[in-house]
Amino acid sequence: MFDCIIIGAGPAGLTAAIYLIRKKANLVVITQKVGGQIVDGPLMENFPGFEKITGLEFAQKMRAQAEKLDAKIIEGAEVKKITKVAENYEVEGNGFEKMQAKSIIISSGKKPRKLKVPGEDKFMGKGISPCVTCDGPLFTDKSVAVIGGGNSAISAALELEKYAAKVYILNLGQNLIGEEVRLDKIKKSAKIEVIPQAKISEIIGGNFVEKIKYIKLSADRKDLANGAEKEIAVSGIFVEIGWEPSTKYLEGFVELSPQKEIKISANNETDISGVFAAGDVTNVKYKQAVIACGEGAKAALNAWDYLTKSQITNSK
Amino acid sequence: MFDCIIIGAGPAGLTAAIYLIRKKANLVVITQKVGGQIVDGPLMENFPGFEKITGLEFAQKMRAQAEKLDAKIIEGAEVKKITKVAENYEVEGNGFEKMQAKSIIISSGKKPRKLKVPGEDKFMGKGISPCVTCDGPLFTDKSVAVIGGGNSAISAALELEKYAAKVYILNLGQNLIGEEVRLDKIKKSAKIEVIPQAKISEIIGGNFVEKIKYIKLSADRKDLANGAEKEIAVSGIFVEIGWEPSTKYLEGFVELSPQKEIKISANNETDISGVFAAGDVTNVKYKQAVIACGEGAKAALNAWDYLTKSQITNSK
Repeated sequence: MFDCIIIGAGPAGLTAAIYLIRKKANLVVITQKVGGQIVDGPLMENFPGFEKITGLEFAQKMRAQAEKLDAKIIEGAEVKKITKVAENYEVEGNGFEKMQAKSIIISSGKKPRKLKVPGEDKFMGKGISPCVTCDGPLFTDKSVAVIGGGNSAISAALELEKYAAKVYILNLGQNLIGEEVRLDKIKKSAKIEVIPQAKISEIIGGNFVEKIKYIKLSADRKDLANGAEKEIAVSGIFVEIGWEPSTKYLEGFVELSPQKEIKISANNETDISGVFAAGDVTNVKYKQAVIACGEGAKAALNAWDYLTKSQITNSK
Repeated sequence: MFDCIIIGAGPAGLTAAIYLIRKKANLVVITQKVGGQIVDGPLMENFPGFEKITGLEFAQKMRAQAEKLDAKIIEGAEVKKITKVAENYEVEGNGFEKMQAKSIIISSGKKPRKLKVPGEDKFMGKGISPCVTCDGPLFTDKSVAVIGGGNSAISAALELEKYAAKVYILNLGQNLIGEEVRLDKIKKSAKIEVIPQAKISEIIGGNFVEKIKYIKLSADRKDLANGAEKEIAVSGIFVEIGWEPSTKYLEGFVELSPQKEIKISANNETDISGVFAAGDVTNVKYKQAVIACGEGAKAALNAWDYLTKSQITNSK
């Protein structure tokens, strides 16, 4: 019987582990991948204390910090179900034995959204990649497409610019939305070409991606039928159209928002007593590593409060 | 006219500055001391990404990060008053010229609480110190007293143990409240002696602190009159009895809680549109550096949202 099972080991889950284990809580972290999505993300330049750090490097630092404190991390595992058993919670899934705890912290993050067009599944890993940092160098001197119009798409394009001969950004909207500093870099780049009002229709190729087809929408974006289908030749495609929370296994267990995010209180409580949540899996408005870390610390301190039923005095 | 004036440069204020300046916001940070209270705090071992880092070192890293992005920081200055002028805010005080901005982020933190006993003001800086990290080594091979019973007092005692011959912890309550890991260290220390149910009554000395007087309370703590006055000889005194938010200059401007903390929404809004707050100055439940950083990022993103009146897409 654990004091706490932490589900997910991204910034929120690992920070929660660091905080709880310093309280001598008996805990286990169950995760598919240590670091979560930041491992596949771009260079971080806005995490306080680090001028520049890759998500992978940051994840490794947090992992070392947690493990030095003797945190037990089960990697390559996936939680499928949580059940209330008397006053405790039972967790089951793949890659670990069924186990129980007095409290749960859910920090299972979010996953990239899919395009849902023909060819996407076929060419996944054969030209379509979820990870610019991992796969960018594979497209040295080749043409690539980034699908999306937000900060993720901008980051991906700026990263790919270092390697690729040509980088297309295919954006459903009229304008990219992101930090001015980086929009400037996009404008100034000789390699990056933005194609606005482009709706992807198909991905085509032989063994690997060769072409991407899209419909050029009218200015009002209303009349899709009038859009002319076009195509460009690319070897690589990076889909950066947002995320969906990893909460499928939680449906019917905790209350979710219409966006399927876990609804939490200011104290990181879900609607189930003893079950807390933190980070990108929750309805916290902004999804940022440092915000997830802060939320993880809060969830841990509130879980500890719940476990001890006493007032904990805190200081820096 | 600035886009934003950030008041205070602790973890919350500096993180807010880093986030906002990356949006190319025109901002200025006004602060008494860069780093705020973490500069005087103990070694941090729970900030994700840093196994061990002093508050001072962490503050220097954040400052360098913000200044590299061209953040303007006015140090040694104190805000005395904020006034609404049309749709903007005017800030005045000591150490800077009156200035206006379209938005404000308040992150002025909190200050150590005082004992309010005879001798406290007289011996401040003459044996009484607010900063163990700064002044601990001055008491090498001497006897010192730490006043308090929470994590701050525990940290102070464990830090002082490295230098002092003897460390007394004078605690009003019966038990120290803190992390088990550190309570164990206190118990095992040959140098540290905990005196529970001790109410400080006076600080005595010549040019410097020589003695501390306290009343030993009865077990039920009710009958103060029956407590016998005792004294111990010490050269140094560290008062670690908690904090009060730095909000005196805000009374009548923004809504404060009964504890004089700024009341904020989940989006770091105060009750005044365009005025945001973050960190230890707010009613956020736990006061921790990483939580303050997360809150600073949230305040910045919400302020940016307010400034642009548009939806900002965020990613890691």
